[in-house]
Amino acid sequence: MSTVTFDRDDPVLAAAAWSRLAEPGDETAGALVTHLGAAGALAWLMDQSGCADAGQRGDALAAGVARWSPRLADLDPSGEVARLTRFGGTVLVPADPRWPRGLDDLGASAPFALWVRGDPDLAGACRRSVAVVGARASTSYGEHVTGQLVSGLTDRGFTVVSGGAYGIDAAAHRSAVVHGGHTIALMAGGVDRFYPQGNHELLRRVADSGAVVAEVPPGSTPFKQRFLARNRLIAAATAATVVVEAAWRSGALSTARRAADLLRPVGAVPGPVTSMASGGCHQLLRDGVATCVTDAAEAAELAGSLGGDAAPARAGRADHTDGLADVERVVLDALPARRSADVASLARVAGRSLPEVLGALGILESRGLVGTDGARWRRSRRPAR
Amino acid sequence: MSTVTFDRDDPVLAAAAWSRLAEPGDETAGALVTHLGAAGALAWLMDQSGCADAGQRGDALAAGVARWSPRLADLDPSGEVARLTRFGGTVLVPADPRWPRGLDDLGASAPFALWVRGDPDLAGACRRSVAVVGARASTSYGEHVTGQLVSGLTDRGFTVVSGGAYGIDAAAHRSAVVHGGHTIALMAGGVDRFYPQGNHELLRRVADSGAVVAEVPPGSTPFKQRFLARNRLIAAATAATVVVEAAWRSGALSTARRAADLLRPVGAVPGPVTSMASGGCHQLLRDGVATCVTDAAEAAELAGSLGGDAAPARAGRADHTDGLADVERVVLDALPARRSADVASLARVAGRSLPEVLGALGILESRGLVGTDGARWRRSRRPAR
Repeated sequence: MSTVTFDRDDPVLAAAAWSRLAEPGDETAGALVTHLGAAGALAWLMDQSGCADAGQRGDALAAGVARWSPRLADLDPSGEVARLTRFGGTVLVPADPRWPRGLDDLGASAPFALWVRGDPDLAGACRRSVAVVGARASTSYGEHVTGQLVSGLTDRGFTVVSGGAYGIDAAAHRSAVVHGGHTIALMAGGVDRFYPQGNHELLRRVADSGAVVAEVPPGSTPFKQRFLARNRLIAAATAATVVVEAAWRSGALSTARRAADLLRPVGAVPGPVTSMASGGCHQLLRDGVATCVTDAAEAAELAGSLGGDAAPARAGRADHTDGLADVERVVLDALPARRSADVASLARVAGRSLPEVLGALGILESRGLVGTDGARWRRSRRPAR
Repeated sequence: MSTVTFDRDDPVLAAAAWSRLAEPGDETAGALVTHLGAAGALAWLMDQSGCADAGQRGDALAAGVARWSPRLADLDPSGEVARLTRFGGTVLVPADPRWPRGLDDLGASAPFALWVRGDPDLAGACRRSVAVVGARASTSYGEHVTGQLVSGLTDRGFTVVSGGAYGIDAAAHRSAVVHGGHTIALMAGGVDRFYPQGNHELLRRVADSGAVVAEVPPGSTPFKQRFLARNRLIAAATAATVVVEAAWRSGALSTARRAADLLRPVGAVPGPVTSMASGGCHQLLRDGVATCVTDAAEAAELAGSLGGDAAPARAGRADHTDGLADVERVVLDALPARRSADVASLARVAGRSLPEVLGALGILESRGLVGTDGARWRRSRRPAR
């Protein structure tokens, strides 16, 4: 039946073949390839598809054979690899040391191969990485925040991974490229075409400085199901996923939920509640799926190693009453703004005993916050810092 | 020593006296009054303050006596109650059926009395109530969202409780008044003065349609410590606290943390991460103290009874592919946008078996999404709804 003409024992070509035969995330194919190896599974499939009754058995494997066989006729992994090579690209298989190890967490739904244009060392690039994803229909607020986040992550040595789409994805890639950072676009269709058209130039620059990657071979169209399947790769390849803007039905939410399923930390950037574009982010916060992320330090903390990347605690505005005990604050509050007061009236106003008030006045005086003529006390005109 | 001239056995006057003698939240005084009753505790204090060595014993009670005694000389609860009565006000004590029962959760730091201008039935008003608090330095965004929240809560029959301050507090009271709702201002200083001055007219209207309330007697100045102490009343009197805008050091955060300590649900309204005024809200979300609240329905859900006040699930935009199975979506995606295709090529493109594709096409046709000339299939020009 089959017209396959390539070396069926070459593990890279066999993996490339499977990335054409089975749709992304096909767990039956994944289990078969895990069990027999890509080449063994391919040989087995070719034997099966010769049997007229294979599709009649009714089990998952038989259903798989019926699903995969229609594509055997056109199978040409050598040609597809050659096509990628003309673009300077590389095919990675799971055994390759450059394979991003986070994808192993996908189990049977892990990809068979990755088709890479650009730097093929995805393992190195993803070791310290954050996915920054969001709505195509982004606002200028979302794009601004994405730029701030990504430049800060880039400064901290993180690779920024996104989906190459319009809106937040494009803003993330663009900011990484502009700041000289490493960025990876994980695409739903073949990397022979930089899709969507409007991001062609941006994706060319991403391939130059980072990588444009797909699990489907060159020539594959980006279907809706492939976008959803692709989202699992973004979630799995990175240490954490941050959603910047997402409406109720945004695909970015599926990436976030995939990441949470994989026990990856998820962040969501809040926005005005009056903005539909932030509605999905707020839902992730409400559902407890995501942590609130407001800047690059907090995003880095999600993705980074404990300690080294912890976001600094917010200090708030310094106040000249910092470090005062309760009784000292109360006595200071009890002092009139402009007039002086004696200790007895301060005790009455502050609701503290005379010894407490005298002790507090001593400490306040030592800090330059109050002064006395011996009998009466007043606030210092300009508190010492 | 004492010049007290009122009826020391009157429980309301004795409670009023304690609200003058002890600062808000004084737990030693609270324990004493709980133990002996307000009148008994007052009699005991007057005996103690006659003893020259009472302040020397060094225990908490002796320290209390030293703290409270300086105020005994000026004590005039009858005069203060008369002053409140001239404003048409009412003094409530914990035994009063109109006392808001939530305050009981404060234990020894519960107030001794409440000085009320307006409707004294705080128990009824707080049975279904939400605290809406936030920064004095609010933005127009925060005020707009406060208006939306409060009008929705008012429509749902909630009393809106706040602190009478500028900014978010004022926006909350104003929106409740404008929408004919019930609102309560819990003040840090005596209710004889509507503080701050700029909210005088607003607070007058709050007293007309709801209530202006303090735990300190008329004539008491609103110190910083009293603001912090007052926040515990806002947290305890209501079923939930929602913070709309708050910077890092905003007093509204202390109200939120007090509410969380009292196991009351806390909500925080997110805003732009570029706005300092939302920084404290985002911190509450990050710390897990608060739930993300974006509208009145979600605020009502926090405060309301389970079920009756649950926020409706978001539907998102309806889609003509709603309700389709995975295989049907994949087959629909596989159909070219403008050209027709035969079943074999659809099976190849979709990565599904022929029987699966035929089944899916049947369902898609029945929903008016695809059409056929018998051999080839195409998308319907205008999907049926």
